[in-house]
Amino acid sequence: MILKQIGIIRSPYKDPQQAPRQGSFRQDISTIQVDDEFSPALEGIDGYKYVVVFYWADGASRDRLKSSRHKDRGVFATRSPARPNPINFCVCKLLSVKGSQLKVTRLDAVDGSPLLDLKPFIKDLDCPAG
Amino acid sequence: MILKQIGIIRSPYKDPQQAPRQGSFRQDISTIQVDDEFSPALEGIDGYKYVVVFYWADGASRDRLKSSRHKDRGVFATRSPARPNPINFCVCKLLSVKGSQLKVTRLDAVDGSPLLDLKPFIKDLDCPAG
Repeated sequence: MILKQIGIIRSPYKDPQQAPRQGSFRQDISTIQVDDEFSPALEGIDGYKYVVVFYWADGASRDRLKSSRHKDRGVFATRSPARPNPINFCVCKLLSVKGSQLKVTRLDAVDGSPLLDLKPFIKDLDCPAG
Repeated sequence: MILKQIGIIRSPYKDPQQAPRQGSFRQDISTIQVDDEFSPALEGIDGYKYVVVFYWADGASRDRLKSSRHKDRGVFATRSPARPNPINFCVCKLLSVKGSQLKVTRLDAVDGSPLLDLKPFIKDLDCPAG
């Protein structure tokens, strides 16, 4: 299973130490630049208030199975970027769409992270009641 | 970017036509079998009521950029499995964890789908207010 890079994330976080633990804790604006080849897939995304952004945490360890922060936790029980497949996702607030460029908040990606996918956030699916 | 298969999903849906459009609409139980190599990463996951399950929709088109159901929509504005990187995710209710086997509901994966990642669902991160 080989992933295609579909774009790039431009963020204020120049290295993993600068990035927030979770993007939802910050109001910084990031820019998602979708490659021209894939821009037709964006049609209609501007109708959503929130989008789910998937990116590749290319600096993260893929061999660590135990949390470095929490004793007695495996990485599947944490939101650490370190995991066998470092697919990170953030539910981001969509500020604007201009051509193939999106501005969002709530994203925790390091500047230059490869973009993998975008999906609309749909509360009835993504937020179980209770 | 090359993905590792970390396990397999066993579900009642034997082909894409049987699978629900969204798993949250059904109460069927699916089994997630994590490969032994990755089972240490599960420690502590049984403390969560919901988990985010990432799988590869290996039957989905990767070339289609426009929705087949909705006119004037690109695939990034839909939850279709067809997209350049068919990474599907479902917020699943975790029923049980026994060894490296999880039972869940709300999963829409076809039987045999490759498992990519598991993360705890954290309402404060994943469900923006309003």
